[in-house]
Amino acid sequence: MKVKLIPLAIATAFAAQVQAGTVTSDGADIIIKTKGGFEAKTADGDYEFKIGGRIQLDYNSYDGVINKEEGETGSDLFFRRGRIEMKGKIKDWGYEASYNLTDSGSIDQLNTTYLGWGKTALLTFGQQKENFGLEDTGSSKWTTAIERSLPASAFDTGNTVGIKFHGATDLITYNLGVFKSAIDADDNSLDTAVTGRFVIRPVNTGDTLVHLGVGYSMRDGEFDEIGARLGVRGGEDKTANKVKAEYNSGLMGDEMKFWNLEAAANLGSVHLMAEYFDGEVTGASNLPDLAADGYYFQAGWIVTGESRKYKNGIAAFDSVKPKGANGAWEVFARYDSLDVTGSDSSPLIDLTGEEADTITLGVNWYMNSAVKIAVNYVHAETDVEKSGEDDGDALTARLQIAF
Amino acid sequence: MKVKLIPLAIATAFAAQVQAGTVTSDGADIIIKTKGGFEAKTADGDYEFKIGGRIQLDYNSYDGVINKEEGETGSDLFFRRGRIEMKGKIKDWGYEASYNLTDSGSIDQLNTTYLGWGKTALLTFGQQKENFGLEDTGSSKWTTAIERSLPASAFDTGNTVGIKFHGATDLITYNLGVFKSAIDADDNSLDTAVTGRFVIRPVNTGDTLVHLGVGYSMRDGEFDEIGARLGVRGGEDKTANKVKAEYNSGLMGDEMKFWNLEAAANLGSVHLMAEYFDGEVTGASNLPDLAADGYYFQAGWIVTGESRKYKNGIAAFDSVKPKGANGAWEVFARYDSLDVTGSDSSPLIDLTGEEADTITLGVNWYMNSAVKIAVNYVHAETDVEKSGEDDGDALTARLQIAF
Amino acid sequence: MKVKLIPLAIATAFAAQVQAGTVTSDGADIIIKTKGGFEAKTADGDYEFKIGGRIQLDYNSYDGVINKEEGETGSDLFFRRGRIEMKGKIKDWGYEASYNLTDSGSIDQLNTTYLGWGKTALLTFGQQKENFGLEDTGSSKWTTAIERSLPASAFDTGNTVGIKFHGATDLITYNLGVFKSAIDADDNSLDTAVTGRFVIRPVNTGDTLVHLGVGYSMRDGEFDEIGARLGVRGGEDKTANKVKAEYNSGLMGDEMKFWNLEAAANLGSVHLMAEYFDGEVTGASNLPDLAADGYYFQAGWIVTGESRKYKNGIAAFDSVKPKGANGAWEVFARYDSLDVTGSDSSPLIDLTGEEADTITLGVNWYMNSAVKIAVNYVHAETDVEKSGEDDGDALTARLQIAF
Repeated sequence: MKVKLIPLAIATAFAAQVQAGTVTSDGADIIIKTKGGFEAKTADGDYEFKIGGRIQLDYNSYDGVINKEEGETGSDLFFRRGRIEMKGKIKDWGYEASYNLTDSGSIDQLNTTYLGWGKTALLTFGQQKENFGLEDTGSSKWTTAIERSLPASAFDTGNTVGIKFHGATDLITYNLGVFKSAIDADDNSLDTAVTGRFVIRPVNTGDTLVHLGVGYSMRDGEFDEIGARLGVRGGEDKTANKVKAEYNSGLMGDEMKFWNLEAAANLGSVHLMAEYFDGEVTGASNLPDLAADGYYFQAGWIVTGESRKYKNGIAAFDSVKPKGANGAWEVFARYDSLDVTGSDSSPLIDLTGEEADTITLGVNWYMNSAVKIAVNYVHAETDVEKSGEDDGDALTARLQIAF
Repeated sequence: MKVKLIPLAIATAFAAQVQAGTVTSDGADIIIKTKGGFEAKTADGDYEFKIGGRIQLDYNSYDGVINKEEGETGSDLFFRRGRIEMKGKIKDWGYEASYNLTDSGSIDQLNTTYLGWGKTALLTFGQQKENFGLEDTGSSKWTTAIERSLPASAFDTGNTVGIKFHGATDLITYNLGVFKSAIDADDNSLDTAVTGRFVIRPVNTGDTLVHLGVGYSMRDGEFDEIGARLGVRGGEDKTANKVKAEYNSGLMGDEMKFWNLEAAANLGSVHLMAEYFDGEVTGASNLPDLAADGYYFQAGWIVTGESRKYKNGIAAFDSVKPKGANGAWEVFARYDSLDVTGSDSSPLIDLTGEEADTITLGVNWYMNSAVKIAVNYVHAETDVEKSGEDDGDALTARLQIAF
Repeated sequence: MKVKLIPLAIATAFAAQVQAGTVTSDGADIIIKTKGGFEAKTADGDYEFKIGGRIQLDYNSYDGVINKEEGETGSDLFFRRGRIEMKGKIKDWGYEASYNLTDSGSIDQLNTTYLGWGKTALLTFGQQKENFGLEDTGSSKWTTAIERSLPASAFDTGNTVGIKFHGATDLITYNLGVFKSAIDADDNSLDTAVTGRFVIRPVNTGDTLVHLGVGYSMRDGEFDEIGARLGVRGGEDKTANKVKAEYNSGLMGDEMKFWNLEAAANLGSVHLMAEYFDGEVTGASNLPDLAADGYYFQAGWIVTGESRKYKNGIAAFDSVKPKGANGAWEVFARYDSLDVTGSDSSPLIDLTGEEADTITLGVNWYMNSAVKIAVNYVHAETDVEKSGEDDGDALTARLQIAF
């Protein structure tokens, strides 16, 4: 028997060898990788290419003050984000292209970074995050709650086209940039925004981190409101109510300024974070000001013992990488508040909601490094009735795949 | 001479070796492939990535009742479909992203599938086919005729966002899903559709197949017509006439229900297929119903002897893979009919054409696994004159490349 | 010591080998490459796949007659182009898909080419360049000036859907195609354009080239003007003035015809190029004609000694590949002119600017094969005042990354 088996084994091995073709490079040695997306880089580090994407499928159900329609429960199932993402490197230059597939397509990020001076001094040109605020600067893939807090939404600088000088060490992270305002008040000349942020990490060892930061943004353009939706997106039609201060129709402020303070800590599997925001919209001499301030506190605990990643480069929390085969489980609570009553008392301004607070409780299941399932409960209260109510509840769920 | 030649050969071999770089993975073994697009997968089957696309360039020429413009011949050259497609796998989760480049961009498919229970029980979340009907469930790349039949178009469930439970064995295929209706009648709450299908294959051996199926769909939303274009797309401006039952302007039904029966056989290089459809739109108590039914018969013969592929997973025909260097040639004929006269007789309903039949004769040349050239002749007849005519002819051609 | 070191070296080599996985093909041998984008091809040449893109971030500042707003300086920072590009080959068929990410997405190129007859006789189907004019036929990545000349813009055939027969040898390049006009005057039937070009290269040896060409285009459709912006794009809102002849509102010509002559030379690091254009829009018997003619001369010198690449296949200049570590530096000057006073004298026609000349001086820094930085100064003069002025200046800058 054994005599027969040996030739068979050889034949099998030979057959396998014939079927499999070789893969070589016509230049530098290349290392490739797939974890759902695809990466290739030269072994000398000169060139890199990466393609992937993210899908966030959300379900929202919301009633009371959260829903615009009085006395009814609103609901929707929709793509919160669907993006194709390419990244790469060509010697001293990195690039990034991220495209929103939803809403008939738009650029999310499209930029190139000069890497020649090292990580402590980078220059990014093109459409990018301005990097203002701890919650806003982190990736939407890895926010703890499904939606960002009320004040972070009210003072979101968005992705704009400009030039940002930034860098980081283990101790500090800084960025300062000039950007084209999202909306040009005047088609003919360029309205600009200047945004900066400085973060210091007195403790930054392994899974233990203390993060303290401050940011500022000053923007020309056209601004008719300061506000935020009440803790949920409310579906594609965005039928969730807002707390906001708004000019009467046709009026526009031409400058917006805001600043923030941020503090966070990572203590093994527990993280704490808080931010305070304050800002205003101003206009011509006769136009009253819109003003708002707000804050949030958040605490999260990864029950299965993992620690949230943190990126020094952008001074923000990042992914949770599950260690076990059953994934990582996280529970969290967040309290946030936005108050727009600081706006000038004027018949030209319409205040809706005036002040709102929400409590968000949630569970995140990081099934593996690519798939996350999140369920959030949101309770919102406003100091003034909207649509005949001053409180409401929402249940939101997300299935996310990042490849 | 020989003494000189040997060192030269060595030098050449050495030079080639120096030029070619190595390609390695920084983790699991990877197998890659290109057949115009690109694929990479880990040898352990945990991860996969695939990128490709499809281009369908169509020419249409059509006259008589098929053309909206009385007495003239319409024509157009246009992209019927142009898509970039990404697919992949991350352990127990698959994903699929397909983006329409035409018409300024839209999502075709964007979904993720839980694979952990095996092929007999899959859960797909996101934008996807609902899988109703044999012709509609198959890929648009591999329909035998250039356009699907009248009743399959009239009762097309489209690609919608939802959750589908599905699976297959060699014997059966099933799917049942809940989806968000393409159009929400009410922005504030979610209109849903429930769609199911069951297929049994009494014979399923190699190239011989007998397929029997039944499907049902029940949809909330807004519906103002049931109908289909007369056998051709009619170009980008869609100037081909329709057979349809339609409410007078402003009226909308709020529910649509339909079912079908399907039968097909693959007998070596010959395939036969037929479907029957029946459905109606209903609305508030005073609104009359729209109703339609229809059927088609199709027979095709691959002259060069290949057999159409069939996918158990979706219970639908798929590609033709040519065996010879000159590709595969197929001829086919299809007869289809759609009748909307079952609609209530009411001044609130506008019937145009009432009943239409088309005969489609065509030739497909599968040049290789990626390139297909199709030419179809369509003859349409309606029982009532439209634009002053009750019959018409069309010639359509398609160049398709799938990479 | 030596005795200890040897086992260590072996252990290290072994560890590296264990970490790195193999990469194989499941069919033909494959060669891959990354230079920021990614390429894979089978060693037998049957299949190819390539993915990449281009980002052009522009800054424009312009005053005087160049700016529509009287007496003010216009400025903008914007993406002139942002594209994702895929190319490939499947045996005898090539394909190309290029998608504009800007302006909510549109197809730039989407076509397939039959390669079976070799480089001297190619057939391209789908959306493509018509190949008219030396400056227009070349890639927008490698034009010497940031924007093309006035007459090349006025007589730009754009990317249209059609069929082009084309080919090249070292001596000649030709193309002749039929295309769908960009705008159909009549939705129901297809308006077409016929465009041809013939180029001869009496000298074509290494870095020395003499190029002589002629082109013609004849187009049905709807045409209301002939003209071009005054040397700059003027930002996303395109607030740069134009020189143009235009029908009064509502009037449309239904045919446009134009031809050109082209001459160019590459003399090592110096290139010279010039084109002359002449064309007209005609309409129904009572409608007067729009007519324009123009020309440009350009001379460029690559100070660092490289030579501009030239592609025989399309008879157009291409990239500059820097040889040194500090990149390649190029200086150039261009003089161009467009005259629309050949239009019929009629109250039905509005002439703006009548004749315009611009001088463009610029510097290009090709940092590496992927990154280009360009700064242009433009001086424009018009023979008639526009917005109260008859001359103006502009400064434009571009950061380009092509991966």
